[in-house]
Amino acid sequence: MRHLISPQDLSMEELDELLTLGQDIMNNQSKYAHVCDGKKLATLFYEPSTRTRLSFEAAMINMGGQVLGFSEASSSSASKGESVADTIRVISCYADICAMRHPKEGAPTVAAMHSSIPVINAGDGGHNHPTQTLTDLLTIKTQTGRLDNLTIGMCGDLKFGRTVHSLINAMVRFPNVKFVLISPEELRIPSYLRREVLDAGNIEYIETDKLEENMPKLDILYMTRVQRERFFNEEDYIRLKDSFILTKDKLQYAKKDMYILHPLPRVNEISTDVDDDPRAVYFKQVQNGVYMRMALIMKLLEVEIPC
Amino acid sequence: MRHLISPQDLSMEELDELLTLGQDIMNNQSKYAHVCDGKKLATLFYEPSTRTRLSFEAAMINMGGQVLGFSEASSSSASKGESVADTIRVISCYADICAMRHPKEGAPTVAAMHSSIPVINAGDGGHNHPTQTLTDLLTIKTQTGRLDNLTIGMCGDLKFGRTVHSLINAMVRFPNVKFVLISPEELRIPSYLRREVLDAGNIEYIETDKLEENMPKLDILYMTRVQRERFFNEEDYIRLKDSFILTKDKLQYAKKDMYILHPLPRVNEISTDVDDDPRAVYFKQVQNGVYMRMALIMKLLEVEIPC
Amino acid sequence: MRHLISPQDLSMEELDELLTLGQDIMNNQSKYAHVCDGKKLATLFYEPSTRTRLSFEAAMINMGGQVLGFSEASSSSASKGESVADTIRVISCYADICAMRHPKEGAPTVAAMHSSIPVINAGDGGHNHPTQTLTDLLTIKTQTGRLDNLTIGMCGDLKFGRTVHSLINAMVRFPNVKFVLISPEELRIPSYLRREVLDAGNIEYIETDKLEENMPKLDILYMTRVQRERFFNEEDYIRLKDSFILTKDKLQYAKKDMYILHPLPRVNEISTDVDDDPRAVYFKQVQNGVYMRMALIMKLLEVEIPC
Repeated sequence: MRHLISPQDLSMEELDELLTLGQDIMNNQSKYAHVCDGKKLATLFYEPSTRTRLSFEAAMINMGGQVLGFSEASSSSASKGESVADTIRVISCYADICAMRHPKEGAPTVAAMHSSIPVINAGDGGHNHPTQTLTDLLTIKTQTGRLDNLTIGMCGDLKFGRTVHSLINAMVRFPNVKFVLISPEELRIPSYLRREVLDAGNIEYIETDKLEENMPKLDILYMTRVQRERFFNEEDYIRLKDSFILTKDKLQYAKKDMYILHPLPRVNEISTDVDDDPRAVYFKQVQNGVYMRMALIMKLLEVEIPC
Repeated sequence: MRHLISPQDLSMEELDELLTLGQDIMNNQSKYAHVCDGKKLATLFYEPSTRTRLSFEAAMINMGGQVLGFSEASSSSASKGESVADTIRVISCYADICAMRHPKEGAPTVAAMHSSIPVINAGDGGHNHPTQTLTDLLTIKTQTGRLDNLTIGMCGDLKFGRTVHSLINAMVRFPNVKFVLISPEELRIPSYLRREVLDAGNIEYIETDKLEENMPKLDILYMTRVQRERFFNEEDYIRLKDSFILTKDKLQYAKKDMYILHPLPRVNEISTDVDDDPRAVYFKQVQNGVYMRMALIMKLLEVEIPC
Repeated sequence: MRHLISPQDLSMEELDELLTLGQDIMNNQSKYAHVCDGKKLATLFYEPSTRTRLSFEAAMINMGGQVLGFSEASSSSASKGESVADTIRVISCYADICAMRHPKEGAPTVAAMHSSIPVINAGDGGHNHPTQTLTDLLTIKTQTGRLDNLTIGMCGDLKFGRTVHSLINAMVRFPNVKFVLISPEELRIPSYLRREVLDAGNIEYIETDKLEENMPKLDILYMTRVQRERFFNEEDYIRLKDSFILTKDKLQYAKKDMYILHPLPRVNEISTDVDDDPRAVYFKQVQNGVYMRMALIMKLLEVEIPC
């Protein structure tokens, strides 16, 4: 039995297979309308996340499956002192597969060890969020036609943004990918990532606090939210939050085929006048998230691909 | 694409069509068991409302569709600062139609502007609650056989009760409808409604604080709850809340074919000994609410009516 | 129409029928995949209980049915002052059957009186939890092949544990069942149970605080959680909670075919090294809970058993 805890759990072949399946689902959704008939997905959200939870639910329902679960810890047995190991053994009696979001890093790993159904990590603390990363990859591949030979700009909170870390880890596996890491000094990527992933892998990258002047070289611009709760004081937040806002004006320096991604929710880091630009694909990305989750659920349940 | 934000969004022809469809669903429910197979309804409840949410869910499930969503704001992305405009664009990727309840007036209107799926207003602040009004209309029409030539009594909190305002707005569109507005002085209908709707439309109405003596003229008695939270102080609440209670005793003055409606939940404004009276149709009204929502979802999804 | 409020509502014949159906479902699950197509279950949980709620939901979904409901009181109309009687009349318009968990003893009984759909008590205060008891019976019967001629050990909090009281009440109906009641002095079974059920029924039992030395005589060991909230002070809790922990060591004194049950969630009253012992059947018990609820829903909906 397979689980998905980190994007690195997948071999390059498996990743390729998944992305190909995701693209086929995108183009032939009706073909998949009954591949999960009679199957149940449990959504175990110990921390609320409407977007991710509903994406999983839509994915399962699109394939004819059903959903059960909870959307916050207070209505789970965790509040009665039950261990994650016990909870997953119970859930294994109720469902065929589960998606778990947990505030504690490593909780989905513990679950996977005791589960008799596939466990998908739907986000664990600041750690991993592999289905977001798969979604990002599908979006990049669909928009640009490739996952190699890309210059990827990442902008905003690169220190705490787990989607950023996860995407860097995923993209360095492809040849000739370069990064332009755009953030305030205080929110640069963690040093372990710089040292162990980028430097160790001989990956080309720059760190900068200039969005505009780096714009022309980018094939992808990955924007992220600067979360208020990451700052020690209000002053720093206010000073920094607006520094890295993408506006229509700044976009004039971008390539005609540079695509803008964002894991959402956005607050104000992309001004709404950018939304109509054909390069803004963050809502398409949301749709892709459903397709990728469909592909992933199919793969983990070992559902046969219909012809 | 159509949305339903206010009952007035519907032309008289459309309203008639919807009510006719609602009645057909009432009489031939099984005919509609699969008209929404493969469709998904998103219930976006930023404010809890079990009754309304479950009515929508039952409606969709009755037609073979599926449901996903959230039942309170705390488990939505709103708490992360996302705008309603962005939320609905995301939800558009997950579902085919959505029902939104929001504490802020106008939120469903904003949603509709940015949505690529039909939006149904499931209640926005003190403003509109169109599916309740459609339910009321179906109930009146089914019970009395008509929507014109009626004398409608409305009793209780006429100041804050949005279902009352909404029903008045809907009924003045039909010929020869009169109103008897029964409330404490402090809870009379808002003056804009008196001036702009009743007076401007030359509608016959009286305002009174006497329930019993007006009973004999009524074809419909629409009771409403007097909510504690509407009062500035506890004394006023206690003094007024019992003044307009419907009892079996008071019912003796009513016509044999006067029907009693209530949008529910009731607290004590209708005493339980009235429940068995054949004129008490407030639980039938709940059932009608499911039929009307089925009709509305079908219409907005442009589902063909099966023969 | 039938409800299930207490396990004693069922005659011995009905109980036998239900258990036989539960066993058939266990062995031929696919046979039942569509027996509830088009039916809706409402889960009305005025008090959170993930395990029980999800078990009901899995049961209904396994039979092709659909589920709607709420998982805590705050999102129900109860918070607006609605009576249980009114709520159930509303829910009767939305669903074909309902499962209600309520903090107040007797609430499901009140609901049943006003309901036009079958009501299943999913736990009311410290009172009844009949579907847990049915699950326990199915587990005992499946593991040992019988429900008579058994010596049943019950260990832990016997004072407040409603599953214990309910199981004693159920088991005394079978011939030659003996009890070994193992608990700290402070947490012995309530005196009404001792007097009115055990003594009045001439049932053989002992009360003791020794787990190990009583182990060899047991056919069933029913472990329960000692809940912190049952104690008046922290000291008592800490002193007592570990006294009745089942470990691998203590298990050496048990029969080779003594089965260990636990209603879950467990905190630490069974150490995890016991989990792999073939006599530990508490997770199998969870699975049985789904089968029993399927059987019960079928029976109350008067669904025909497929051949």
